[in-house]
Amino acid sequence: MALIVQKFGGTSVANPEKIRNVARRVMKKAAAGNKMVVVLSAMAGETNRFVDLATQMQKIPDLREMDVLLSSGEQVTVALFAMAVKNEGQDAISLLGDQVKVTTDRMHAKARIMEIDGDLINHHLDQGRIVVVAGFQGVTEDGDITTLGRGGSDTTAVALAAALQADQCEIFTDVDGVYTTDPNICVKARKIDRISYDEMLELASLGAKVLDIRSVGLAKRFKVPVHVRSSFTETEGTWVVEEDNTMESMLVSGVAYNKNEATITVSRVPDTPGIASKLFTPVSDAGIVVDMIIQNTRAGDLTDMTFTVPRADYERAMKIVNEVAAEIKAESVKGSQDIAKVSIVGVGMRNHSGIATTMFNVLAREGINIHMISTSEIKVSCVIAEKYTELAVRALHDAFEMDKDNLPVEEK
Amino acid sequence: MALIVQKFGGTSVANPEKIRNVARRVMKKAAAGNKMVVVLSAMAGETNRFVDLATQMQKIPDLREMDVLLSSGEQVTVALFAMAVKNEGQDAISLLGDQVKVTTDRMHAKARIMEIDGDLINHHLDQGRIVVVAGFQGVTEDGDITTLGRGGSDTTAVALAAALQADQCEIFTDVDGVYTTDPNICVKARKIDRISYDEMLELASLGAKVLDIRSVGLAKRFKVPVHVRSSFTETEGTWVVEEDNTMESMLVSGVAYNKNEATITVSRVPDTPGIASKLFTPVSDAGIVVDMIIQNTRAGDLTDMTFTVPRADYERAMKIVNEVAAEIKAESVKGSQDIAKVSIVGVGMRNHSGIATTMFNVLAREGINIHMISTSEIKVSCVIAEKYTELAVRALHDAFEMDKDNLPVEEK
Repeated sequence: MALIVQKFGGTSVANPEKIRNVARRVMKKAAAGNKMVVVLSAMAGETNRFVDLATQMQKIPDLREMDVLLSSGEQVTVALFAMAVKNEGQDAISLLGDQVKVTTDRMHAKARIMEIDGDLINHHLDQGRIVVVAGFQGVTEDGDITTLGRGGSDTTAVALAAALQADQCEIFTDVDGVYTTDPNICVKARKIDRISYDEMLELASLGAKVLDIRSVGLAKRFKVPVHVRSSFTETEGTWVVEEDNTMESMLVSGVAYNKNEATITVSRVPDTPGIASKLFTPVSDAGIVVDMIIQNTRAGDLTDMTFTVPRADYERAMKIVNEVAAEIKAESVKGSQDIAKVSIVGVGMRNHSGIATTMFNVLAREGINIHMISTSEIKVSCVIAEKYTELAVRALHDAFEMDKDNLPVEEK
Repeated sequence: MALIVQKFGGTSVANPEKIRNVARRVMKKAAAGNKMVVVLSAMAGETNRFVDLATQMQKIPDLREMDVLLSSGEQVTVALFAMAVKNEGQDAISLLGDQVKVTTDRMHAKARIMEIDGDLINHHLDQGRIVVVAGFQGVTEDGDITTLGRGGSDTTAVALAAALQADQCEIFTDVDGVYTTDPNICVKARKIDRISYDEMLELASLGAKVLDIRSVGLAKRFKVPVHVRSSFTETEGTWVVEEDNTMESMLVSGVAYNKNEATITVSRVPDTPGIASKLFTPVSDAGIVVDMIIQNTRAGDLTDMTFTVPRADYERAMKIVNEVAAEIKAESVKGSQDIAKVSIVGVGMRNHSGIATTMFNVLAREGINIHMISTSEIKVSCVIAEKYTELAVRALHDAFEMDKDNLPVEEK
């Protein structure tokens, strides 16, 4: 008998019919002798409705009250789900974040889980009940409701799986797993059977939005095997697990791309200590997240700084940077929103040299100019002109033969 | 500086615009130096939406889960309300039933409040905040969410006023107070300025649905002055308060009617000990609430029993009664759904004789036959044919001169 945590997102519970289908799926697994904990999001569309109501009340809605408002969404789905299970004769009980005691810090709208109490859930599981937990929500030590931010229900599921020492954590979504790249732009994209936590972290942060990055970090920390799969089929999805030998046999596991960034270049900055701090402190104070930063030394104690910011923050960032540039007597500030970041990710890179070079060669062969390069142990990212994104992704996917299956350990 | 509890129902907070209006009204009172606690219901229509969703999930929705579902409605309104207040620069905080600690028994869907903790509310009031409390909901000692049933937000407001020793409790509704009778059928109906708890209890139970009967009982027990008034005007409404001399000067305070009952008569029942118990136990076991019971002795150890049941339960009740009648060898069972109960209520009756007789005379003069009579210290009720309801109400209103204002004490 296994203890399984299953998470279903908003589209999987968008209406009574879908909730009933999901309930039946969970009940089948329970009937097979497993202890089942289900984590649910709000019905698709509800969050937008709440945001719309809130902005009608207050220009910038109060974060504490926004959390009270938003958390009512999951409250609705868990109650309906428990009813659906009971209607078919099995026992179930719904629990909210504060009832489970998903204790978080006080950062409303993006709270972090500090502790989860598994006692109440275990008690109900022992009584033979399917336990239905409201995802995305927690409670501070003072009893205030918090929410965990985007992808919060994934985090709830993985954190619960860790706290309950569950055998597996299944994340049901509207895609059937993690792909080597976006199937919409590369027909050869292949579903990955197994991927390491580290690779998934890079892919998630690079824009493959299947699984929230925080939940991957959490899964890695507590060694929770996560199974990402489709809520509409019975097909196996992708297992996100600890790194093993089979993974290393692949040079590159996936190609990710991100079109939501913009670059800003500050030219001929005096290359003196503290200059980077002067430039980036006001940007970060404005809540703008800087991703890549490249600094090239020029002759004569001058340097060029290029960095990327979310495209949505581009105008604000340019305004701030122009002010600082004048202050530090930089020659010019230029920016571009027509860029994309293309990245290859794979734990295999650790043991193979020349992978970055291959990437550069592939892009060069296609006539794609590289504006910025950034590398990590298991990733190489290049900033290119946005219009070449699809071409680059397909060329890299081909070059690294990602359409071919993982080699099994035995054949190695 | 007074501490005031104000309750607004679902129609008063039906949309963002209305919530904003109510918020402004409360803020004005707060700006005048009062400590304000606001109790809100769910937005009008939400409860129906939830009931509809629930019945799609489970034929008879589980009561515990129904409470989880329903209580999310007030959660939405209190959050939006707090935002509306904050948007105009005053401070506010929303609190749910479990956060306040509105502790109830475990009777889901109709829980009774056992205890209210005023500490958290007082803390926030002392910080100068408007405290916005979700009505209708409570929490068991085990942490399960409960709801208080129909009119539950009124009960929350009065219970909070009692717990906080508030100076007043204002119930805002879509009518501007308690009337001597239904203005829709009697143009001379007059708004009552002050009415005693006991009279209000009789009027509420007789169908004047302005104020939930449980909240009146609670207000009486804790001597909470309740002000029932319109949320759409600034006019004074009706104060429900302890009985005083001015009230006794009125013979009758109001005429109520109820068209939702039916009568059942069991004829020629053997008049032996235990016969009433035999008849009514199965009816009450079926959850059917019997209101009036009349027993007339006949000659020869036989008796006739007549009683009223809610019209919605009439068919079920007839079935049960027919079975029992056969068993106890009663001669016949007859019933009627075309009846109405008309009642006059007034604490003045305590000190005046002949009021019941006047009522019978008035009805006789109009040619209205009385089927059943039931009296209490401050009430006389007659069951008549339904078609005469409006005629009876108008005739009684005229006869007891209810269109004339309460006599002030000085003129007595």
